[in-house]
Amino acid sequence: MSIHDPLQLYDFVREVPDFPKPGILYRDITPLLADAQAFQAAIQFLAKRLERHRVDEILAIESRGFIFGAALALHLKRPLHLVRKAGKLPRTTFAEQYSLEYGTDSLELHTDAIKPGTRYAIIDDVIATGGTAAAVCRLTAKCGGIVACCAFLLELRGLDGRLKLNACPVESLLSCD
Amino acid sequence: MSIHDPLQLYDFVREVPDFPKPGILYRDITPLLADAQAFQAAIQFLAKRLERHRVDEILAIESRGFIFGAALALHLKRPLHLVRKAGKLPRTTFAEQYSLEYGTDSLELHTDAIKPGTRYAIIDDVIATGGTAAAVCRLTAKCGGIVACCAFLLELRGLDGRLKLNACPVESLLSCD
Repeated sequence: MSIHDPLQLYDFVREVPDFPKPGILYRDITPLLADAQAFQAAIQFLAKRLERHRVDEILAIESRGFIFGAALALHLKRPLHLVRKAGKLPRTTFAEQYSLEYGTDSLELHTDAIKPGTRYAIIDDVIATGGTAAAVCRLTAKCGGIVACCAFLLELRGLDGRLKLNACPVESLLSCD
Repeated sequence: MSIHDPLQLYDFVREVPDFPKPGILYRDITPLLADAQAFQAAIQFLAKRLERHRVDEILAIESRGFIFGAALALHLKRPLHLVRKAGKLPRTTFAEQYSLEYGTDSLELHTDAIKPGTRYAIIDDVIATGGTAAAVCRLTAKCGGIVACCAFLLELRGLDGRLKLNACPVESLLSCD
């Protein structure tokens, strides 16, 4: 099967009820990764969407954002920077907190990852509440970088995550309630 | 600068003393990711090394293994499967424990990721003690899969990680003491 339309990628997202806890309908994207054509197509579609935002460099959010961030960085021939959970990056970092259901957590970036005036695409696999992507937007802006766009394979529309991203352009290939 | 030899990639690995704790010399590969040419070259060199092992599918170890695993899966047009920390994969999994400095942890794979007789490449960024890669080798073999090879950007030779991999072929582009 040749994949010429992003809508065909819905076939590779599986619904898993009651994960990670009762009442949650989880969208599992691992079948898409396990299909070489579907994954390749997803990266090509996403790369195309990024083009219009004149992206200079890529920020990939740990950990499944690493999959799409690395692939897009290679496809677009752009530098890749990792946004990691606290304590994982070895050199001097900037940190930004975000809210969890109970308490807070923080994300870090090496201080030399963000250059003033440079345009960054923030990449993750899924946008749900938007808390982590919003933290990376704040972190980037605080360091003088420009958030060119936030891009995701899949958007969980019902959670209104994009409203947290302060009118930053958002690209998502797929969208579920 | 054009990169025609893996040895040139040493320039993009930075030594960070006393991380994550005093006395440890950490090898930071983020400068390689942040250089589009160096990252591209690393993936091309690694893909070339994988060719001789007739790899059918890719297993990427969370979380920096996702970077190289995804890139290699796309480059070689092979299915990608995620090896994740406990509780992260939504469907039925096989699990395998491995030792940490204090206690144990476990890695999981979706049960449908491994097909008997299929040849897998196990991918991570760095091999240190080899504990996690060895756990993935056991997991793959237990499910009837064949470990075609384990491949890493960087091998920390002094820790003898490859001895834990039961004579499974090991590929690493760079090697440090």
